[in-house]
Order: sequence, then C-alpha cells, then structure tokens
Amino acid sequence: MRICEMDRKELIALKERLDAAYRSFRQRGLKLDMSRGKPGPDQLDACSAVLDAPFGDVRAEDGTDARNYGVLEGLPEAKRYFGELLGIDPRRIIVGGNASLTLMYDMMMRLYVFGVGGNAPWRSFPKVKFLCPSPGYDRHFAITEELGFEMIPVRMTSSGPDMDEVERLAADPAVKGIWCVPLYSNPQGICYSDDTVKRLGKMKCGAPDFKIFWDNAYGVHHLYGETPLYDIFRACEEGGNPERAYYFFSTSKITFPGGGVSIFATGYGEHAEIAKRLGIQTISYDKLNQLRTIRFLKDKPTTMAHMAKMAEFLRPKFDTVLSTLERELGGTGLATWEKPRGGYFVAVDVLPGCAKRVVELAAEAGVKLTPAGATYPLHRDPEDRNLRIAPSYPSVAELAAAMELFCLAVKLAAVEKLLN
Amino acid sequence: MRICEMDRKELIALKERLDAAYRSFRQRGLKLDMSRGKPGPDQLDACSAVLDAPFGDVRAEDGTDARNYGVLEGLPEAKRYFGELLGIDPRRIIVGGNASLTLMYDMMMRLYVFGVGGNAPWRSFPKVKFLCPSPGYDRHFAITEELGFEMIPVRMTSSGPDMDEVERLAADPAVKGIWCVPLYSNPQGICYSDDTVKRLGKMKCGAPDFKIFWDNAYGVHHLYGETPLYDIFRACEEGGNPERAYYFFSTSKITFPGGGVSIFATGYGEHAEIAKRLGIQTISYDKLNQLRTIRFLKDKPTTMAHMAKMAEFLRPKFDTVLSTLERELGGTGLATWEKPRGGYFVAVDVLPGCAKRVVELAAEAGVKLTPAGATYPLHRDPEDRNLRIAPSYPSVAELAAAMELFCLAVKLAAVEKLLN
Repeated sequence: MRICEMDRKELIALKERLDAAYRSFRQRGLKLDMSRGKPGPDQLDACSAVLDAPFGDVRAEDGTDARNYGVLEGLPEAKRYFGELLGIDPRRIIVGGNASLTLMYDMMMRLYVFGVGGNAPWRSFPKVKFLCPSPGYDRHFAITEELGFEMIPVRMTSSGPDMDEVERLAADPAVKGIWCVPLYSNPQGICYSDDTVKRLGKMKCGAPDFKIFWDNAYGVHHLYGETPLYDIFRACEEGGNPERAYYFFSTSKITFPGGGVSIFATGYGEHAEIAKRLGIQTISYDKLNQLRTIRFLKDKPTTMAHMAKMAEFLRPKFDTVLSTLERELGGTGLATWEKPRGGYFVAVDVLPGCAKRVVELAAEAGVKLTPAGATYPLHRDPEDRNLRIAPSYPSVAELAAAMELFCLAVKLAAVEKLLN
Repeated sequence: MRICEMDRKELIALKERLDAAYRSFRQRGLKLDMSRGKPGPDQLDACSAVLDAPFGDVRAEDGTDARNYGVLEGLPEAKRYFGELLGIDPRRIIVGGNASLTLMYDMMMRLYVFGVGGNAPWRSFPKVKFLCPSPGYDRHFAITEELGFEMIPVRMTSSGPDMDEVERLAADPAVKGIWCVPLYSNPQGICYSDDTVKRLGKMKCGAPDFKIFWDNAYGVHHLYGETPLYDIFRACEEGGNPERAYYFFSTSKITFPGGGVSIFATGYGEHAEIAKRLGIQTISYDKLNQLRTIRFLKDKPTTMAHMAKMAEFLRPKFDTVLSTLERELGGTGLATWEKPRGGYFVAVDVLPGCAKRVVELAAEAGVKLTPAGATYPLHRDPEDRNLRIAPSYPSVAELAAAMELFCLAVKLAAVEKLLN
C-alpha cells in the first residue's frame, strides 16, 4: 500500500517499524559523507602516474621553459589538447590554474567591475539579475549571491532549463546571464538537448551583454556511454550572438581536484580584451602542471580510455544509489529522481517540506548529506524537497548502507509529515 | 674629462668615437634580454629535485589527501613553513597558487568591490588615490591603473619611500594605500629602514581602511648576506593599526616562477572575512604543489642554504653589472645607481630626457631593456631618466657584452642630448 494512501492508524504502525529500523541504524555508528562530489581515493590512485612519472623535459613543444615566467594563455600543447578533447578551437582557449570555479568568479568580477565589449560594467546598473536553473550548483549561486545579483530560479526539465521561461526572462534587460551545467547537470544529471542549446544561442536577450556561463564540468564524465552535446559556440554563432558563451572545463575530476588544470574559452571577439585584463592579474598560470597533466592525458583517445577506467569506479556507486532508490522508494509516491548517465550526482525530490528533515535524520545516524536547500539560490528550496546525493567518495559497501538509511529517512520524514 | 664639461668640438669628436664603437656592437649581432627579472636556466636546473623527486605520500601531515578538494587556506605544514621562514604567525597566512601578483590583484578587487572590515567598498568613492613609491614595480602600478585609481608617485630614498611625503599624502582620506617592496626594491634594490617601517605602521591616515600592500618578493633573496627588515605586522600593531598591512610572498624566485607557491598574510581581525570571500572564488589552491615545494625547501635553514646557492648564480651577474657601470660611467656625471645587496634588479638614473633613447639604442644593437618609463605609474617617468636592468637571465659573458653596450648607449644618448 502506498504510504500517502494510509490512514492514521496504519501510519502510526508504520512509524513504529520505521523508528525501530532507524534506531538500529543509529546503533551501527555510521560515519559517511555523501555531501560533496569528491572522487574516492581508489579513483585518485588510478591517476598516480601524474605524480610519480619522472617529469622529463621542462620545455614545451615550442621551446618555452615551463619553469619560468610567461605564456599567459597556456602552452600550445595544452590548448591543442583541450581543443581536441572538447571540440573547441584552441584559439578560443585560455588555460588556467587548478580551479575552473576561479575562472568563473574572475570572469564575473571582470564583467562587474569593467564590463566587456564596450558594454557598461555591471556594477553600474541599479539591479543585475541572473538566471539560475534550479536545482543547480551551490558554488555557482554563491558567486552571483556574493555580487548581490538577484537570482531567478528556472525550473529544470529533462532536457535542460525550461526554455520558454528562460526566453521570457532573458527579454528583461536587467537579466545579464545564466548559469549552465549542460552535461550531467549538478545535481540532477540532466543533459541539455540540441534544441535547448540552440535556443540558448539564438534567443533574443534584453541585455546586449547577456552571458551564458557554460560550465561543462562533466563534459567527458560518461558512465554508460557518450551523451552528445550540441556545440554552444556554434549555437551562439548560428544565432547571431558569437560572444554570448563563456565555456569552462577542468581536469579536477579527470586527474586531481586539488591539482588539475582548468580552461576558459570565449568568443573570438572578446578573447583579446579578456586576455589583456587577465594579464594584469597574473603573469602566467602553472605551466609545469599543464605539462604534467597533458603528458598523462595525452590526447582524446587516451583520455577517453582513462575516463572509462574512472567510470569503472563510479558506475557501481551510481548503480547502488539508483537500485536502492528503486527498491526502497519506487512506486511509493514519496520520491522522484532522474537517472543520470554520467557526472557526479543524483538528485532526489521528496515530499514537499521533508528535505530538511531527511538531512537531519541522516546526520543523526552518521550520514552527512548536502544541506537541504543548497541546490537553490540563497539556499532556499521553495518547497523544501530537493536532496543531492554525491555517491563518488564512499565505497560501494558504505554507500549501500548510507542509501538504505537515506531511503529510511525519506520514509520516516514522510510519515512524520503525514501524521502532523 | 667629464662629458658634461666638454665643449662642442670635443663632444663631436667623442660622438664619432662612440658611433664607431656602437657600429661595431651592432655588427656583433647580439640578441639578449635584460628586460624581465627571470631566473636563468642554470638557476632553475639547481631546483630540479622539485620536479624529479618521487612525490611520495599524497597525504599532508594532518592526513588530508592533497589530491582532493579542500583546505582553502593551505596545508598546515605549508603555513608553518612560510611562517618560520618569514617570521609570520601561521594563523595570519593563506597559501595561494603560483602567483603572489594574483593574490594582490584579487585583494585589491575585493577592496574595490566589497570593502573590508565594515568599510565602504572603494568603488563607492568618487576618487581613490594610491601611493606609488617610484621607481617601482610596473605590475603593481598596472593593477591600480586598471582600477582607475589616481596613482601618486613618491620619491624613493636610500631607506625607502620619502616618509615625510608619505605621511603628508596619507592624511588625505582619498588615499587608500601604498605599494611597497620593502627588501631589495624593484628596481633600485633599496631596503626599508626600521624607521621607515615603523612610520608606515603608525602614521595617521585619513582613510580608516588605508592598506599597505607589502610585497616582500625578495624577502630571502640576499646576495651579500642578510639584510634585516622590521616586522610590518609588529610595526602596525605598535602603531595601533593592526589591520593595515597585507603581506605577500612567493617561491617564484626560490624554485620556479612558473610553478611556485605564493602566500598572503593579513591582520587577525580581517583574516576570517577575507578567507570567507576567498572561499567563493575557489575551493582550494593546488595542495599537491604545496607539498612538492615544501618537501624540497623543508625549513628555514634548508631554504637559506638553497638561497645561498641561488646567490652563487646571481652574484657574479650583479658584480658584472655594477663593475661595468663603475668602470664605464663612474665619475662621468652621466649616471647614478644604488648598489643592491639582493633582489633581482639594478636601476640606473641617466641624464634627464635620455632614458628612452638609451633603450632605443640598446634595442637596435640587440639588447632588450625594460621600456623606459615602465618603473613609473602610467609608464610616465617625469624626467625620462630611470632605467631598470634585470641581470638574472643572461649568462655572465652575455651580460658583460650587454652592459658594455648599455654604458655606451648611456654615453651616446648623453652626447646627442648635449649636442642638441
């Protein structure tokens, strides 16, 4: 019988059984973290050659001594490598430090302080609004929150953000841009359809400097075969808006989150202006780490083979999450979820008003989840129902226990709510 | 006979001799770069163990997996190492990426966009002024230029910036801070006296958030034994201004300019606020490179022994520059210079109106110098007389030739000027 169809007596009886199960979970003294998308140690060990291989020649292919100052936009082989991997013209690319998040923040700061392409700096407007497909990535929203932008949540559909809504909102000149994780979105694992990408490229925007922050964080992070993604630069060019997209990517979840290489790609028209401003902030990023990383990842085929190996670590974890959800919550009417085919997260929508309680129950039994609300601007999930599961770090055995507890917490929270 | 005392006929005869010497220089087809303070390849080779040593344990001393996300402010051993090396309480320190310049730029951006310590963001003032001891570091000035600050040059004395002038100017509430390279200043190699540092710490400032950007880039880069430097944090605390100084340092010229580790130290009162804002820009800097670098540099004694080895490469170069200057230009009245006891530069003041011409003459004979004016705000040397020599990159033999040409160019430019 579905829980939401039970009468009060049945619910009380169920609650007693769930409470007992929960108590026995608490006695197990779990201590697990499913809160952040961190690769597990086994996965990192499989990249150890990056650290252990002798460095070899300190010179880049053009003779640049990678140890010394210079080459602001990145070594030629690094630009070419990322260009090949992602299908981006290397001339668009700037190779950065270990964090694409920093490249996004820095670009947002430049837009705010200086503006680009002859447009007024965003600080000069009384109000700046930014579109935030939600649920989304908390660290994106933190950047636009920090700058005081009004963040407008846009509902996600199974093919990306609700484009009717995006088009309607983008007509407002105060709306200056949108955050996008187009492949295996954080947290739902949704992939943008060709139609979504094309509409983003061609839609009419009220602001001449409307910007798409295209964080393709999981661009090669497939778990069950490749999912195609329409080229955002092509979509923007076809739509007559060649400077609209800023493309971000990194090797944080290809090699090491703490010591990878990030990139930033732009339209041709703004590239030189952005590079010039960047040249005030730094002389050059870490070129030694560019060589170290590129020499390990070599080329697209080598990298895709490496990512297939990474998927071997991750797939059983996703399978555990999804099969436990299906077994424990399938057909209960208590939760819905997408089935990601890549990326680092699974998102679960529980009954409205229950997400915070699920996090609390899980925490009290030793399983740390991403705080409820974190996936929404200002940490405010209007319905208090979205939960993010990050299955990458724990082992499969730990995850099995944690997911059982998670599902139990979802049921318990639901019963508590229905009894109130 | 001193050139400035010659009559026209003597000058013409001299010019003919100098022209002939210059022509023969041009025929030698030199191709040398004395424009930037880059370590030479021999110096970098002496650091090769950083790259070639097996990485070893990926865990920091507190068990942190340096490969993964986290630890925003830097690994404990990295903080402790820099604290010991520089005499800074590790609790003040944030360990950054490969460029202290970026830490300075980012801090300036935070002051501009957000403000600190409850003070209004600098963007909210109709005018922001910044003190620029000159000649100084062009990349510092580029940051304050980028933000549209009015840069006020302050004359350098042999004990640091003219403090009477600094104190007079700092009383203006629009003056928000000062750039300082306190040891072996770029480009003159001047060291700030205790009195200068103490006066900076205690002077009365019109702006409550007056900031000292203390770029101790050459803090351990002694060539002829250690030069002491008064603790800027102590000076500020003794002066009742504990939040006044931001301290920057890096291993760019200890290990690799392209792949070192930088730090940023603050007052205790602002530290948490700054770290919180930094946490929006990044999850963590490259902790693997922190371990790699710290394991090579180990502790203060090991680092000072390493720097003594670095000095073995640099001292003959500085000796060549200074002895050639003395031999060719000493007593001529055509040039003055400080004799740096460390750092990466020598600055030469030539006759007013001659610096640009010297750079031009050197370039035409194959020696690239830092552009004249670069050492002043907005690239405007009011007297067109200051030249920066960066002797670190060329070999001693190359440098000997380049310096001969340099001195010849100084004489030739002077004679041309006197004849006009």
